[in-house]
Amino acid sequence: MISIDRPARTADLGDVRVANRAAVLRHVRLHAPCSRADLAARTGLNKATVSSLVGELIERGLVRETGLTENRVGRPATMLVLDGSRYVGLGLRVGADELVVVAVDLAGERFLTWRRAFAAATVGPDETVAALAALARRAIGRVTGAGRTVLGLTVGVPGLVDADGAVPAAPALGWRNVPLAAAVRRALRDPGFPVEVDTDANLAVSAELRHGPYAGTADLVHLTGGPTIGAGVVSGGRLLRGGRGFAGGIGHLPVLPGGPACGCGRRGCLAALVGVDAVVRRLLPDTAQDGPVTDHLPEIERIRALARAGDDPVRTGLTEIGRQLGQAVCVLVDLLDPEVVVVGGHLAALAPWLLPAAHAELAERTLAPAPVARIEASTLGSEASALGGATAALATVEAGHLPTA
Amino acid sequence: MISIDRPARTADLGDVRVANRAAVLRHVRLHAPCSRADLAARTGLNKATVSSLVGELIERGLVRETGLTENRVGRPATMLVLDGSRYVGLGLRVGADELVVVAVDLAGERFLTWRRAFAAATVGPDETVAALAALARRAIGRVTGAGRTVLGLTVGVPGLVDADGAVPAAPALGWRNVPLAAAVRRALRDPGFPVEVDTDANLAVSAELRHGPYAGTADLVHLTGGPTIGAGVVSGGRLLRGGRGFAGGIGHLPVLPGGPACGCGRRGCLAALVGVDAVVRRLLPDTAQDGPVTDHLPEIERIRALARAGDDPVRTGLTEIGRQLGQAVCVLVDLLDPEVVVVGGHLAALAPWLLPAAHAELAERTLAPAPVARIEASTLGSEASALGGATAALATVEAGHLPTA
Repeated sequence: MISIDRPARTADLGDVRVANRAAVLRHVRLHAPCSRADLAARTGLNKATVSSLVGELIERGLVRETGLTENRVGRPATMLVLDGSRYVGLGLRVGADELVVVAVDLAGERFLTWRRAFAAATVGPDETVAALAALARRAIGRVTGAGRTVLGLTVGVPGLVDADGAVPAAPALGWRNVPLAAAVRRALRDPGFPVEVDTDANLAVSAELRHGPYAGTADLVHLTGGPTIGAGVVSGGRLLRGGRGFAGGIGHLPVLPGGPACGCGRRGCLAALVGVDAVVRRLLPDTAQDGPVTDHLPEIERIRALARAGDDPVRTGLTEIGRQLGQAVCVLVDLLDPEVVVVGGHLAALAPWLLPAAHAELAERTLAPAPVARIEASTLGSEASALGGATAALATVEAGHLPTA
Repeated sequence: MISIDRPARTADLGDVRVANRAAVLRHVRLHAPCSRADLAARTGLNKATVSSLVGELIERGLVRETGLTENRVGRPATMLVLDGSRYVGLGLRVGADELVVVAVDLAGERFLTWRRAFAAATVGPDETVAALAALARRAIGRVTGAGRTVLGLTVGVPGLVDADGAVPAAPALGWRNVPLAAAVRRALRDPGFPVEVDTDANLAVSAELRHGPYAGTADLVHLTGGPTIGAGVVSGGRLLRGGRGFAGGIGHLPVLPGGPACGCGRRGCLAALVGVDAVVRRLLPDTAQDGPVTDHLPEIERIRALARAGDDPVRTGLTEIGRQLGQAVCVLVDLLDPEVVVVGGHLAALAPWLLPAAHAELAERTLAPAPVARIEASTLGSEASALGGATAALATVEAGHLPTA
């Protein structure tokens, strides 16, 4: 195989320093505690360059020296660890039934995780923005009160997000054309750090790429659970965005012709079969008669309990849903060839009963030689995309740019 | 929107020189004739660096000075153009009914294009390798006889290609587990330049990325025509390969449940509806009765003639095929968000009748806001993947490494 990527842009010495700073930061993150000599060996940079970069990183509070020294022949080496507790990224998530905020510092330590039950689809965009901003302000207050600095904030939504952070469509929230990033910025009165918006699928796969058991997997898909299904795709280590930023649509893949009606107007779409509303309707028909559900957690727990108890209709239903999920995963696997497809939300909660059938379907359908891609349950919980948002808010510094704050 | 790509690797001064050399080469290619001062302005490099790089490129025969000078105030500037006629890349393609070889020099000039009718599926891999090697040897002889140097050779096949250039499966050729790159290398007696194998879809989209009307499109898909359908995907300017190099499978997307039988054992797959055999069988039922077809060109010409003449069943059939193609394109568009989906082979030949229906289907189905992605016919002909292979064989030099030959 050959590589036919676009030629690299020109590099100048400023770029080189930024790239080298990013490399030093990354190596400290992955291999701490480590000495300056270790860093020079690992990065291939000369020791003078490493010392100069480390000095700068220490000065800015991104790296610190520990009292530890390494036992080796010659002069004892001072060991370095990532610091970064001074700088925090915030991630918010607008789910169908909750708001979540996560704060993470540059060392990857979780500073806070708060959730608030909230029916965004019922109250509409304006009230949602107000609630988001209130939650963000409380989190910012807690962060700054602890003497830390917020470097950025990213909001994840289940829907399409354009280059300006507006949301052309988010069926799970009933939103159309909501200028979300601008509205949150305004509600926070231009907070002095970047406020961005991205899809929850993109943020969730970014969180998987950094935290948890699939961290570092270069070819990875995260399928979000919830009322709609979105795909966050990492290919060759990079998030796949598409020409307008609308990549990742999989919820309306036709899976079962003539199947249940979908919100999009067609029938048998993936979301109409394996989305959380569809699952609850199918497995708990009595609940569904009570009208629209805004908090699915109790229903999913009930389904888990029934499945554990060996309830036949629920088990059969989950197997069928797992098979339909597997059909969609097969389309992803054929087209994208990921190593792992991670499922989140209610799909993760129901994974013990869904995934065996999904794997069987995938193994039977895909034409690529074994081993086929694995389908796994996310371990990051429903805050995956908020965690990804917080991580994303730190990306500039991690790319080697010094914090301006 | 935010970018959460992996951190860049460390850069050292050698890398910088390679990157800068690639940038200078690329700017000369795109903007020739241009002066050293133009290059400095366009690349942001200082003039001394540009002069040094240009000197090296002239010495190796990659760039040359023209007699032209630019009319401007002050000292006349010597203009530079890409030379590169000294170095040639070879691309071969194994189609279902022909072998093709294309030679392209570094300036992008086509040196030769040869085709040979050849039924690879009938004769099997060994004889195909022998025929490929014979064709390659003739092309190499022609290139070296003209005083030029072959820098590399890439073979495109319709099927899966692994990291070693072996072909685990190519249903259109009836191949399984063919160690193609190794076999061609052996047949050419280790020719002293790299011999690589890639999918014809990857090579075709690489050709589109460089040549023809979609050159430079960062988010682009090429759908190959022929007995099977493959997708070459460029996203954010990079070829999408997947974890094992098997990305691009779209031929067995379920499109019409209970539809015509597919070679994979299921029914109604995309390839079983819009692949060339399926199209001929559907629109020219009399021909299909004559047994398997190894050269589809006359049939496709007959279908074009009937469509032009307004033949009702053929026109209706093409509209239906176009709609089914549009359904598959919609899956690609939702998931990948390309700017353009280019169709090749018989799909390009039949585009005037297929694409209106495909566009209508896409516009109706996709949930992303208008303007939806365009579906266009490739202008590169059936040698697209051979052209892409020849271009790919020059990638190392274009990435800024000096030819060792």
